[in-house]
Amino acid sequence: MIPSSPFLILLLLTISLTLSPAQSTPTFFPRITTYQSSLQKQDKPTIKPEIPFKTYYFPQLLDHFTFQPQSYKIFYQKYLINNHYWRQGGPIFVYTGNEGNIEWFAANTGFMLDIAPKFHALLVFIEHRFYGESMPFGKDSYKSTEKLGYLNSQQALADFAVLIRSLKKNHSSEASPVVVFGGSYGGMLAAWFRLKYPHIAIGALASSAPILQFDDITPWSSFYDGVSKDYKDASLNCYEVIKGSWQELEALSAQKEGLAELSRNFRTCKNLQSMYSVRNWLWEAFVYTAMVNYPTEANFMMPLPAYPVHEMCKIIDGFSHGATKLSKAFAAASLYYNYTQSEKCFNLENEHDAHGLHGWGWQACTEMVMPMTCSNESMFPPSSYDYKEFAESCRTKYGVMPRPHWITTEFGGIRIEQVLKRSGSNIIFSNGMQDPWSRGSVLKNISATITALVTEKGAHHVDFRSATKDDPEWLVQQRKQEVEIIQKWIDEYYRDIKQE
Amino acid sequence: MIPSSPFLILLLLTISLTLSPAQSTPTFFPRITTYQSSLQKQDKPTIKPEIPFKTYYFPQLLDHFTFQPQSYKIFYQKYLINNHYWRQGGPIFVYTGNEGNIEWFAANTGFMLDIAPKFHALLVFIEHRFYGESMPFGKDSYKSTEKLGYLNSQQALADFAVLIRSLKKNHSSEASPVVVFGGSYGGMLAAWFRLKYPHIAIGALASSAPILQFDDITPWSSFYDGVSKDYKDASLNCYEVIKGSWQELEALSAQKEGLAELSRNFRTCKNLQSMYSVRNWLWEAFVYTAMVNYPTEANFMMPLPAYPVHEMCKIIDGFSHGATKLSKAFAAASLYYNYTQSEKCFNLENEHDAHGLHGWGWQACTEMVMPMTCSNESMFPPSSYDYKEFAESCRTKYGVMPRPHWITTEFGGIRIEQVLKRSGSNIIFSNGMQDPWSRGSVLKNISATITALVTEKGAHHVDFRSATKDDPEWLVQQRKQEVEIIQKWIDEYYRDIKQE
Repeated sequence: MIPSSPFLILLLLTISLTLSPAQSTPTFFPRITTYQSSLQKQDKPTIKPEIPFKTYYFPQLLDHFTFQPQSYKIFYQKYLINNHYWRQGGPIFVYTGNEGNIEWFAANTGFMLDIAPKFHALLVFIEHRFYGESMPFGKDSYKSTEKLGYLNSQQALADFAVLIRSLKKNHSSEASPVVVFGGSYGGMLAAWFRLKYPHIAIGALASSAPILQFDDITPWSSFYDGVSKDYKDASLNCYEVIKGSWQELEALSAQKEGLAELSRNFRTCKNLQSMYSVRNWLWEAFVYTAMVNYPTEANFMMPLPAYPVHEMCKIIDGFSHGATKLSKAFAAASLYYNYTQSEKCFNLENEHDAHGLHGWGWQACTEMVMPMTCSNESMFPPSSYDYKEFAESCRTKYGVMPRPHWITTEFGGIRIEQVLKRSGSNIIFSNGMQDPWSRGSVLKNISATITALVTEKGAHHVDFRSATKDDPEWLVQQRKQEVEIIQKWIDEYYRDIKQE
Repeated sequence: MIPSSPFLILLLLTISLTLSPAQSTPTFFPRITTYQSSLQKQDKPTIKPEIPFKTYYFPQLLDHFTFQPQSYKIFYQKYLINNHYWRQGGPIFVYTGNEGNIEWFAANTGFMLDIAPKFHALLVFIEHRFYGESMPFGKDSYKSTEKLGYLNSQQALADFAVLIRSLKKNHSSEASPVVVFGGSYGGMLAAWFRLKYPHIAIGALASSAPILQFDDITPWSSFYDGVSKDYKDASLNCYEVIKGSWQELEALSAQKEGLAELSRNFRTCKNLQSMYSVRNWLWEAFVYTAMVNYPTEANFMMPLPAYPVHEMCKIIDGFSHGATKLSKAFAAASLYYNYTQSEKCFNLENEHDAHGLHGWGWQACTEMVMPMTCSNESMFPPSSYDYKEFAESCRTKYGVMPRPHWITTEFGGIRIEQVLKRSGSNIIFSNGMQDPWSRGSVLKNISATITALVTEKGAHHVDFRSATKDDPEWLVQQRKQEVEIIQKWIDEYYRDIKQE
C-alpha cells in the first residue's frame, strides 16, 4: 500500500491504533491480552476482577436515514446494565461506546461505577455498531463496502437515541435525566450526542475528545508535537535520543546485515523482514506511552508504572556513554512492551487482525479524516500530509473515497467557541495535557455551561479510571468538579420539570 | 385502498394535500394552475410577474449517512439566487425548500425579498430533494422504494448544510451569517436546521411550522378543531350548516339516483362515480380556506378574497329558508374553486398526478406520521385514528412501514419548552391562529432567544407573503418584530466575531 510512502502507512496505522486501543481480542492486540491475563493473576487494584453488569441485546435498525426495504433490517446491539445503585426515577448514566467491544470500556470507566451510588444512577454501556458483538451482518460485517457503509458516527448516534428512548420506556422512567459519558472517540460521540440530541441527554462528559482534530481547525503537527513535548519535558536528553534514533535505524537498515543485526538488537522472536516494523514498534511505544502517561500504575493499553514517560526517560538517561541512541530507544520501548518482564522475545511483525483494523481504519478512511504531520520540532522524522495520496490509499483499500469535510459540516468545530457560546449547553470537555489528543479538543471554557477541565499532568481520559488511593490531588479535584457539575445539571433538570 | 375506511384515505389525502400545496404542475393541482394563469393576466399585486432569481444546480451527494458505493452518486439540486441587494460579507438568507418546486416558494415568500435591501442580504432558495427539478434519479425517482428511500428530512437538512457551506466558500463569504427561513414543512426544516446545524445558521424564522404535530404531543383532534373554530367564529350558523351537510350528502348518495342528482347539484363536468369525491372536494375547500384565511386578497392555494372563511360564511348565512345544508356547503365551496367565476363546471374526480402525491405521500407514510382525528366538536364527521390500518395502507402503497416515533427521536418535541430552554437559541416560531396547523407549532416563548410570534387573525405563513398596502397593522407589526429579532442575531454575530 504505497511503498514509497511508509509514513503514510505509519500515520494511518498510528491513527487507527491510537484511537482504537479497545480491542482485546488476541488477533488484534496480542500483547495486551497476554499482559492482561498475567496482570489479572496478580490482582492489580485498578482492574476490576469482574464487570458488574448484565448483558442485553437491543433490536436495532440498520439504517436510520434511509427508508429502503433493506434499511429496515434489524441487528442486535449489545449493551450492559448495572442497576445496583439505581432508584426508579433517578438519573441514567450512559456510556456512548466507541471503537471496540463494550466490556473493555466498561472495565476502564470505573469512574461511572464510583459515582453511581451518590446519584442513585442506572449505568448503561452501549456498544458501537460494527464493534464487539454488535455486528449488523455477523461475521460478514466487514466483508464488503456495501455492508461497512453503515458504519459511521451519525448512525451510531441515532442508535444511541433509539436505544435510550426504548430503554427509558421499558424501565418506566421516561422522566429520568440522561447524562452521556464517553472517552476518546466515545467522548466525541458523547459531546455530539448532547449537541444533536439535547432532548435525550441533559448533559455530556466528554473526556479526551478530539472533536477539533478535523479539517485545519487544529494545527496538523499538534498531535506529534504533543507527544514530543511529554518526552522533552521529562528530559531534554531523552527527547534528543529518541529524535536521533530514527536516523540510526535507517543507517543500520541500509547496511548489508542490517536487518539481522536489528533482529538481534531488538530481540525479535523471528528474523525481521523490514525495518518499518521496528519503526512502527518504537513509534507505537512512544505514542501510546505519552497517551497513557498516568500518575499511577495502570493497565489501559499495557501494564505500566506511574508516569511511564518519565520512567522511559530515566532508562534512556541512565545509559553510560557509548551506547547508541537506537539501543537506548529500544530499552525505553521495552518498558512499554515488557514492564512485567515476562517477554523472552518480541513479535514485531505480528499480523494484525483485519477485522479489528477495519473498524477504525474504515472510519478514518471515510468520515474521521484527521490530517497529521510531524514537524521539525517533533521527535519523529518530519513528514507532511498528502491528502491525495491518503484518499487514493483509502480508495484502494475500501473502494470509496473519504469525505474530508463532512465531520465539520455535520458537527461543526470551526469557530466552535462562537457557535456554542450561543447555542449548546451542558458539556464538560475534560483533558489532560500529557495526552497528545488534548490539542484537538476544547481546552477553554466556552460558556457558563460548556466548560473545559484541563489538568497539566493528566493523560488520555484519566478521569474515567477507577479512583485509587494513590491518585494525586489534582485528579481527585478534577473528578470532584465533574461530579459537582453533573449534580447541577440534574438538579436543574428536576427543578425544570417541577415547574412544568 | 381500504374501502371500509374512507376517512383514512381522506385524512391521508388531506394531510398530503394540506402540506403540499406547492405543486403547481397541471397534473397535481390543475385548478390552481388554471387560476394562476388567469390571475397573472389580471396582474394581481400579490403575485410578482417575474421571479428575480437566477437558477443554479448544485452537485449533491445522494446519501450523506452511509458510505456505500451507491451513496456517492451525485444529483443536481436546484437553487435560486438573488444577489441584487447583497454586499460582500453581508448576511445570507436561505429558504429551506419544502415539498414542491422551489420557484413556487420563492414567489410566495416575498417577505425575504422585501427585507433583503435593509440587510444587504444575499437570497438563496434551495429546492428540497425529490421535488421540482431536484430529482436524484430523474424521471425514475418515484419508481421504486429503493430510490424513494433517500427522500426524507434528515437527508434534506444535510443537503442544505453541504450546499450552504459550498456556496459560502464559492462566494468568499465564509464569515457571513446565515439565517434560514421556511414556511409549513419548510418551517419545520428551518427550525430543525438551526437546532441541528447551529454552526451553519445563526438563526431560523420558522413560520407555521407544526413541529409538534407528532406522536401525542398535540391532541390529535386539534387540526380539525382548529378548522372548525375558524368557521364557528365567523358564524355559528355557518359551522352548523357545514357540520350538518355531511349527513345530507350521505343520505342523498344512498338514494337510487343520488349520484346523478349530486352531479347536477355540484355542476360536475362528468357524471360522478362516487360520493367520496364530493366529500373530498368539500373537505379540501373548507380546510384550505381556513389555512389561507388571509387578511387581504391573495392567491396562495387559489385566488381568494380577504378573509375568505368570513366570505364563505356570508354565502351560507345569506341563503333564504328552505335551501338544504348541502347546497349551502356547495355554494360556499364554490368560492374556493371559482372565485374568479371562470369555471363553467367542476372536475371533482380529477386524477391526481401520482408523482406529485408520492412526494409528501411518501414522507407522510415513512417519517412524517401526524395522527389526526375529527372530534365531535369539529364540523367534520367524527373519525378516529387507527395506526395499524394507516401503517398497513402505507405498506401496501410503498412496501415499507412508517416509523411513527422517529421524528420525535431525531428532532425532539416532547417537553420542548424544558429542552430548548436549556439548549437551543435564535428561533422564531411565527403562527397565525386562523391556521389549523398553528396548534401543532410552538405558541409560547420558550426562552429569551426562542420566541413565539402569534397573531389571532393570521393564517398559514401569512408573514412570508409580500407586503401590500392593505396589510392590517398586526401583520405589519409582526413582520417588524421579525426584522428586529433577525437584526439582533446578526448584530450579535458580528460582535462575536470581532471579539475573536
